[in-house]
Amino acid sequence: MPGYGWISFTTDYGTFDGFVAACRGSIARIAPDVRVIDVTHHVPPADVIRGAAVLAQTAPYLPASVHLAVVDPGVGTARRPVVLTTPNGLLVGPDNGLLIWAAEALGGITAAHELTTKEWMLGDVSRTFHGRDVFAPIAARLAAGAETSDAGPAVDPASLIRLPDPVTSVGDGWIEAEVLTVDRFGNVQLAADGSMLTGLGSELTVNGTVRARRGATFAEVGAGELLVYTDSADRVAIAVNNGRAVVVLSVVPGDVVRIAER
Amino acid sequence: MPGYGWISFTTDYGTFDGFVAACRGSIARIAPDVRVIDVTHHVPPADVIRGAAVLAQTAPYLPASVHLAVVDPGVGTARRPVVLTTPNGLLVGPDNGLLIWAAEALGGITAAHELTTKEWMLGDVSRTFHGRDVFAPIAARLAAGAETSDAGPAVDPASLIRLPDPVTSVGDGWIEAEVLTVDRFGNVQLAADGSMLTGLGSELTVNGTVRARRGATFAEVGAGELLVYTDSADRVAIAVNNGRAVVVLSVVPGDVVRIAER
Amino acid sequence: MPGYGWISFTTDYGTFDGFVAACRGSIARIAPDVRVIDVTHHVPPADVIRGAAVLAQTAPYLPASVHLAVVDPGVGTARRPVVLTTPNGLLVGPDNGLLIWAAEALGGITAAHELTTKEWMLGDVSRTFHGRDVFAPIAARLAAGAETSDAGPAVDPASLIRLPDPVTSVGDGWIEAEVLTVDRFGNVQLAADGSMLTGLGSELTVNGTVRARRGATFAEVGAGELLVYTDSADRVAIAVNNGRAVVVLSVVPGDVVRIAER
Repeated sequence: MPGYGWISFTTDYGTFDGFVAACRGSIARIAPDVRVIDVTHHVPPADVIRGAAVLAQTAPYLPASVHLAVVDPGVGTARRPVVLTTPNGLLVGPDNGLLIWAAEALGGITAAHELTTKEWMLGDVSRTFHGRDVFAPIAARLAAGAETSDAGPAVDPASLIRLPDPVTSVGDGWIEAEVLTVDRFGNVQLAADGSMLTGLGSELTVNGTVRARRGATFAEVGAGELLVYTDSADRVAIAVNNGRAVVVLSVVPGDVVRIAER
Repeated sequence: MPGYGWISFTTDYGTFDGFVAACRGSIARIAPDVRVIDVTHHVPPADVIRGAAVLAQTAPYLPASVHLAVVDPGVGTARRPVVLTTPNGLLVGPDNGLLIWAAEALGGITAAHELTTKEWMLGDVSRTFHGRDVFAPIAARLAAGAETSDAGPAVDPASLIRLPDPVTSVGDGWIEAEVLTVDRFGNVQLAADGSMLTGLGSELTVNGTVRARRGATFAEVGAGELLVYTDSADRVAIAVNNGRAVVVLSVVPGDVVRIAER
Repeated sequence: MPGYGWISFTTDYGTFDGFVAACRGSIARIAPDVRVIDVTHHVPPADVIRGAAVLAQTAPYLPASVHLAVVDPGVGTARRPVVLTTPNGLLVGPDNGLLIWAAEALGGITAAHELTTKEWMLGDVSRTFHGRDVFAPIAARLAAGAETSDAGPAVDPASLIRLPDPVTSVGDGWIEAEVLTVDRFGNVQLAADGSMLTGLGSELTVNGTVRARRGATFAEVGAGELLVYTDSADRVAIAVNNGRAVVVLSVVPGDVVRIAER
């Protein structure tokens, strides 16, 4: 197996401490020629859903990689460390739902293995920092060409932990969907696929009272007005031109939003 | 053309989402051997002036590069995507003023081209994420050695959008200049060149009432006192030793500050 | 001397400005093949103790490197710029205590040199940005294989500035130690070595009134409850499962915390 030239790296470690660098060190010492692309380290602490969403929406745009992801509130407990194989890369991290949406975006899980090979881990594995001691060193081994089957025993993909599927529904002239994420610009991304907008006209309301228009670019509505559009991850999203939709709508991830024709 | 070994990358994308990584992916898939230096991704959303100032002050210290910059509130509208050629590197981004100060800092614009070559873009260009789909892939092509003249038609440099020149004026024993940026340490940088300080003595006031002293290092004034100095970008700046000048002066970018002899 | 393939980089520059990138430029122009691992750039401004602690806890996990660190409130004054040699890498930065804990974590200081070789610095050294003009270029030279003895005159290691040693004490059924750092998750790390926990039982109080339990993983205590554990840097630390210990305990670095048996 030729391995991968790239590791992508997603965590909730932040950049205030040296945690990300320590993991980078684990990678560099094992696979010095592998390059690392940071997806984000600002997943809110322990927010597995946010981590899963960002990774799933980013991974398809990266080169074939080992995708290393650690949002791991159960570190040190019985939750399994795993590697998932897809047609377009590997995913390494905890078995808590963090990896599965990305695996599906990369073509689906063709194999899964638990990570149990002690010789691939840092000598003295800590109980609270498996990113540095378990996940990063093993991601580095795999990027350098090691076989996933040597990482540990095969796991039935059906046994992997899944996050609950977000709520979406569609009716005559309306859709309802959970808020999946809110981005840096305050744009509100729903769990609904862009195709769910097909049946809707251009004059809309959001949550019954807020007027919005369907369009494709922010400038299609006036400053301060709401735009309903298909975003760059092919999800239904709501933006405010020159503003922050998250503030106008006052929603948080998990809330259900209703978009209906006026 | 041999291309460039480096791409510098400046955006208002933040590091909370996967936007920067998706652009890194576009680069890595086209030009895997090109290395990327992040200038900053924390330009305040849509703040083209701040982006232009940071890039112009940083680019001269980087190796010869393709400078990729995206602060692009007009994404998806008629604003042109462009590449500017200078004696010391290329600049790729929207034609909204973001690139011009850096181009001048790199020796001036010797050619400009609109980016229209569809085969250089990501297959299905989104309407809201030209960083990933247009600018990053084209920057990668150019870094890998493609000719700017193959990116699209030549553009008259005089037709490029310019930001308004900041206000500066100098008199007998005083200068006035707009606040250009405020840095992480609260130091207030003015649009005035360091040379404008030449005529001033060492005992000064800022905005009429706040006492300050001219000097070269923060430690030349007591804790909590104001220093007027020429900063590392050769601009007049105001600092407070062990403090934040932006708080003491209560100014924001765009405000005009007057420095006068006591 | 073969040099080093890696530079680690720790500052209080933040990522809002172009300061880190300008230093990266200084490195890239001198040693383009050397790779850089960012430890953190979010040391609070001028917080030398925080910078020293993060670097010391991260450096041992990095490949053999030149560790470049700049938290330098005395920039431009008489404080010496230095390079410290250890059995496991070099450290470059100001002589203000920032480097010494890391040097000790890397095996101790075997030599020290002041940085005086002007030809190794950026042509026109600014008075306020030695990261870009002095420390980064010299770190790059050393990573590329230059000899530390060519950087400037040898310095007696005993003359280097040291930070005050944090307070720790241990008694019959209790320990007291200064808070060294607080991490992104709100975990409170004490200056005490993990070995200081040896004599304590499992039912504890923190600061006399707050109940805590000794354990190894966050999940060993209920949500909202306190855990006293040895962290991944082998320090005594206090966490709250699903919470922020720093908030529960209301402490800041430098405060002394008492952990005692119930």
